[in-house]
Amino acid sequence: MGRERFQGVLVPALTPFKADLSPDKERFVKLCKWLFAEGVDGLAPFGTTSEANSMSAEERMELLEALVEAGIPAAKLMPGTGTCNITESIKLTKHALSLKCGGVLMLPPFYYKGMSDQGLFASFSEVIQKVGDANLQIYLYHIPPQTNVSITLKLIEMLVKAYPETVVGLKDSGGDWNNTQAVISAFPGFTVFPGSELFLLQGLRAGGAGCITATGNANPAGIRKVYANWKTDQADALQARITEVRKAIQAYPMVPALKQMVAHFQKAPGWEVVRPPMVAMDQTRTASLLADLKKIGFGMNA
Amino acid sequence: MGRERFQGVLVPALTPFKADLSPDKERFVKLCKWLFAEGVDGLAPFGTTSEANSMSAEERMELLEALVEAGIPAAKLMPGTGTCNITESIKLTKHALSLKCGGVLMLPPFYYKGMSDQGLFASFSEVIQKVGDANLQIYLYHIPPQTNVSITLKLIEMLVKAYPETVVGLKDSGGDWNNTQAVISAFPGFTVFPGSELFLLQGLRAGGAGCITATGNANPAGIRKVYANWKTDQADALQARITEVRKAIQAYPMVPALKQMVAHFQKAPGWEVVRPPMVAMDQTRTASLLADLKKIGFGMNA
Repeated sequence: MGRERFQGVLVPALTPFKADLSPDKERFVKLCKWLFAEGVDGLAPFGTTSEANSMSAEERMELLEALVEAGIPAAKLMPGTGTCNITESIKLTKHALSLKCGGVLMLPPFYYKGMSDQGLFASFSEVIQKVGDANLQIYLYHIPPQTNVSITLKLIEMLVKAYPETVVGLKDSGGDWNNTQAVISAFPGFTVFPGSELFLLQGLRAGGAGCITATGNANPAGIRKVYANWKTDQADALQARITEVRKAIQAYPMVPALKQMVAHFQKAPGWEVVRPPMVAMDQTRTASLLADLKKIGFGMNA
Repeated sequence: MGRERFQGVLVPALTPFKADLSPDKERFVKLCKWLFAEGVDGLAPFGTTSEANSMSAEERMELLEALVEAGIPAAKLMPGTGTCNITESIKLTKHALSLKCGGVLMLPPFYYKGMSDQGLFASFSEVIQKVGDANLQIYLYHIPPQTNVSITLKLIEMLVKAYPETVVGLKDSGGDWNNTQAVISAFPGFTVFPGSELFLLQGLRAGGAGCITATGNANPAGIRKVYANWKTDQADALQARITEVRKAIQAYPMVPALKQMVAHFQKAPGWEVVRPPMVAMDQTRTASLLADLKKIGFGMNA
């Protein structure tokens, strides 16, 4: 990994599955290439939106290799490599480094609840030490709605103090702007991404690095435009538009909705397949979503 | 797997780790043999107490093989095989079947929250179908304090209806007796284990099958005695005693406390090692626990 930091608009790419629920490499590469063609600054594959936690380590590694083999620059990839257990987190992180990925996005171990900052620190620390590579750059992944495990200010402080060259940033998917603001304020030089474009402009103005957002799968160009123009007088109007689109989509279950959008707008039936425990959105709700999007004049470029 | 159901006192055996945090097979086998020597009816290795979710699938499979190779009857083993993803749950379940384990204890996929009963059903169903073995017997593992995902009465109903020969029971670690009672009442013939010996006698009187309990690692003979005598007039006094012991232990963090007890009573320093995100209990708290146990006259047989 280089020492450059990520910035801009990153997308946790959706993972397509075949009818038998096996990952569909070809469609995955195609979507990722399309996202770059739309102007995104990087991908954060194997995040929550990617249904990464519904896949095995092997499946994730194979998909990551497919991206690199397809010519996508590894420096622009920030794969998720944090699992419940240090053994697999080490394995996935080493694998990402072997492919020269620009960084990794790391969940805390999320099975056991009520763990102390000391215990969570020990978990990240163990992974960092056993990976043992000066090129490693970790972005912490704070997403308490799914994990019920918080990456607190205290934990960040402990990690940054112990590993200042390695623990370089955070994705905040907690949905609480006050927390994002607090992290940005407390750690100057730390690379902080809100986990939704709802906070993109606000984040950039406060010193954030951009955003890493699920709906980047559907509206990459629109979101990228806010990033490109955030210092101009168009910024607020552009933000209002992406907020409008986001709110239309998030009225539905996020991953199933995004997959139905890809299936529809990119004329790719089968893209709607999700892995359990998620359930594909049915025709009625999909029609309703598409009608909502039409009402606001939104369509994905195919 | 035979068609016999588990019953009695099952223990989610602790997993010992070496100083480098790798699993210690030798000590694991020794503990498991001791538990059987103390009279337990079976083991449920790779549960929450076993720190299973802090281990990779490979590590779990190797430890399970070590038990069988050491001569422990596979029919008395109910290993945990449920993970966040169907790929690994299928792999672990097939592996348990290949060793002829008597059943498996299966967590729901626990990363994504707010999933529907339909989605959770699809997850279990996918595992059952892809394992595709008439010998499979699944005990569902309800432990919302860790998973924040509930195995509801509705979900049990759907599973039992679709797979009456396969989905045969449940471990209820929710800590809510009313739920345990409701499951026992709603599904006659379903094999229900409370997840704590606090509910052992109450459970047996209501039609439960015994218990699967963490503190079985420390007090196997005492707990087994309640099971052996639950129809006698000693039952309430015996229950009161195991309740007293349990309460003394659970005033401390459960897994670190149990490991310190094994280290102390079995004169096996090093047993206190836990995998992050857990933290080993320090000397002060350990001394306090041991004093509490002495006060109530409790010691583990070595």
